Amino acid sequence: MPIVPYSGGSSLEANFSAPYGGLTIDFAHMNRILELHEADMDVVVQPSIQWMELNEKIKDSGLFFPVDPGPSAMIGGMVGTNCSGTNAVRYGTMKDWVINLTVVLADGRVMKTRQRPRKTSAGYNLTGLFVGSEGTLGIVTEATLKLAPIPEETRVGVVAFPTIRDAASTAMQLIRKGIPVQCMEILDDVQMDVINKAGGTGRTWKKLPTLFFKFSGTKAGVADSINLTKNLSKSNNAESFEFARSEREAHDLWSARKQSLWSMMALRKEGSEVWSTDVAVPISRLPDIIEISKTELDDLGLFASILGHIGDGNFHASIMYDPRNAEEKARVEKVVYDMVDRALDMEGSCTGEHGVGLGKKSSLKKELGPETIGAMRSVKKAFDPHWLLNPGKIFEFKD
Amino acid sequence: MPIVPYSGGSSLEANFSAPYGGLTIDFAHMNRILELHEADMDVVVQPSIQWMELNEKIKDSGLFFPVDPGPSAMIGGMVGTNCSGTNAVRYGTMKDWVINLTVVLADGRVMKTRQRPRKTSAGYNLTGLFVGSEGTLGIVTEATLKLAPIPEETRVGVVAFPTIRDAASTAMQLIRKGIPVQCMEILDDVQMDVINKAGGTGRTWKKLPTLFFKFSGTKAGVADSINLTKNLSKSNNAESFEFARSEREAHDLWSARKQSLWSMMALRKEGSEVWSTDVAVPISRLPDIIEISKTELDDLGLFASILGHIGDGNFHASIMYDPRNAEEKARVEKVVYDMVDRALDMEGSCTGEHGVGLGKKSSLKKELGPETIGAMRSVKKAFDPHWLLNPGKIFEFKD
Repeated sequence: MPIVPYSGGSSLEANFSAPYGGLTIDFAHMNRILELHEADMDVVVQPSIQWMELNEKIKDSGLFFPVDPGPSAMIGGMVGTNCSGTNAVRYGTMKDWVINLTVVLADGRVMKTRQRPRKTSAGYNLTGLFVGSEGTLGIVTEATLKLAPIPEETRVGVVAFPTIRDAASTAMQLIRKGIPVQCMEILDDVQMDVINKAGGTGRTWKKLPTLFFKFSGTKAGVADSINLTKNLSKSNNAESFEFARSEREAHDLWSARKQSLWSMMALRKEGSEVWSTDVAVPISRLPDIIEISKTELDDLGLFASILGHIGDGNFHASIMYDPRNAEEKARVEKVVYDMVDRALDMEGSCTGEHGVGLGKKSSLKKELGPETIGAMRSVKKAFDPHWLLNPGKIFEFKD
Repeated sequence: MPIVPYSGGSSLEANFSAPYGGLTIDFAHMNRILELHEADMDVVVQPSIQWMELNEKIKDSGLFFPVDPGPSAMIGGMVGTNCSGTNAVRYGTMKDWVINLTVVLADGRVMKTRQRPRKTSAGYNLTGLFVGSEGTLGIVTEATLKLAPIPEETRVGVVAFPTIRDAASTAMQLIRKGIPVQCMEILDDVQMDVINKAGGTGRTWKKLPTLFFKFSGTKAGVADSINLTKNLSKSNNAESFEFARSEREAHDLWSARKQSLWSMMALRKEGSEVWSTDVAVPISRLPDIIEISKTELDDLGLFASILGHIGDGNFHASIMYDPRNAEEKARVEKVVYDMVDRALDMEGSCTGEHGVGLGKKSSLKKELGPETIGAMRSVKKAFDPHWLLNPGKIFEFKD
């Protein structure tokens, strides 16, 4: 496939060149859209483009890239961790949206994992292997991504519950019944307070465990899903069910959720840090693990909260602590790793979307055992025998 | 995770044991359901269970396994080829529905790729690597599969078009607009005749290029999708739009589509064979490749047809020929490989769901080039250095 410069609609092209001021700088930053294939619903990009920037640039096509992790994330990093985000309930995770990758291997060979079909059974799924390999198998220089049509209608709803277990149970039952939602996020009382303090949504929300929903699709489909969700929430003791009253309010509300980590960071005292972590469990275990973890976080006496992508059995804990205080740090560490161990005991995973990196190498060993880590290590050895690429991440050279 | 015997509802258990007559035989055939986790929406199975049998046995749970290749396919083979089927438009392919695999490696080590979370970023995606590896990397002895809720409502619709291009264009536009369909199959005039000859649907269908649709979801959502599909079909010159009048008729109609290969086989003359092949292309190229390939198939003067999963950019050609007639076989071969080359020229794939096996090794080389095949070969070498597992499939030991 020849790499031709992106030549979409003129407004797109103007948008695209403007912020960088010229081709040379664009290329140096590796943040360009190289080809937009509207009729095929895919786009070829360089790895340093941010997903939000990508979506802004292609919006006139009526298409979007639906994987939505933290607002500043770039495609390359998103490939690295097999990230996801609030849209994963409906659209899946990064591995489901990458058609092919161009990769520079450790020995300098350049390889493209696939051509451009959305579906294939031709040989090993190298695309799916590089996605989530945290930069340890090769350097991604180009990615072809699937795009989805922007839904006709999107509504955002907010439902408060008396307990975190009621919220988690509602989420679990919705998934089990197959009621179509685009997003389903859980936020605890602390997170709702963070949103209130950060302002920007134009309302003061109840300081209660809350589910944020995004419903999307055709008008009739959305109305139907909302109705079913309301009924199910009521039967789980929902305190209130509110909708964004306008597109602007819906956008502000969702932004508040997406910015929650940054909002928490903004509330940091001097010298303190936010420990952000995630685990994933089989969905029936969600109410249990969330309830126990919430209690342990509250008992820390720190500014700590639970939020996340409950529709996938995946959630986050964020804890503000002072790393200079050894006793405090040790207590936080214990709560985090106890939560991870609890997820593993429930046949879950030490990370649903953040990756292993350095911090969860010992958890990965517990999760998978020596045979499976050994198989992963043999893949690493096949692609990078001299351990040149991101060494020490995911697992050690030798244990 | 301890492997506990399946202990679902009593009717399920009775169904499950009955055909085999006892535990020992069940285990020997490796066709058991080991665990059904209804609340987690997953199931642990042995590889020799057929997907239709699995769905029959778990139907009282309100859940089903949505990957639906040919009626006799077993889970192990479906893992091997990363298969799909008519449901792939909505539900994706095999790789999207496998949570973990237990695999015996070439050196005798037994490994489980994952625990049981539906979402994870913990280490390399070995599950996704083994799915589609055609038995060349390890022997799958157990699989945990995601399940989906059985939709509230399902309707089957049949739309005839004057030309195959009109049918293909309609399919492409529906996908592009994001109109929700569960299935969208294209059948050419020859295939419709096969269905008429096989009987069993209780009607005689027009011998015209036809789209078969399955709509599913909530009642309101289905009604909406049907309406949008009707309008779009009309604007593409649809000749007729008919619905199955009952659940029984819907089932018979869909079975007719699913059985189409067997129906064609049943029409074979003594000594003749059916060559069944598939390709996949970026979706905008579908009308072109289908039109050209259809003309070339017609020109063979044999019993040959096009059908397939047009919503994924993937379709099949089936050709009845006499392998004892060298001239005829050569002409068929030329049409097949010309179609494959055409798909590759369109940045497509030599196979969307059948796999490479022996027959498409040379096409895979054209599709991916030596660097990518080299990377696949290094994976093979890492897992099976002595080339013991399914040797000669996908690619050669040395080229």
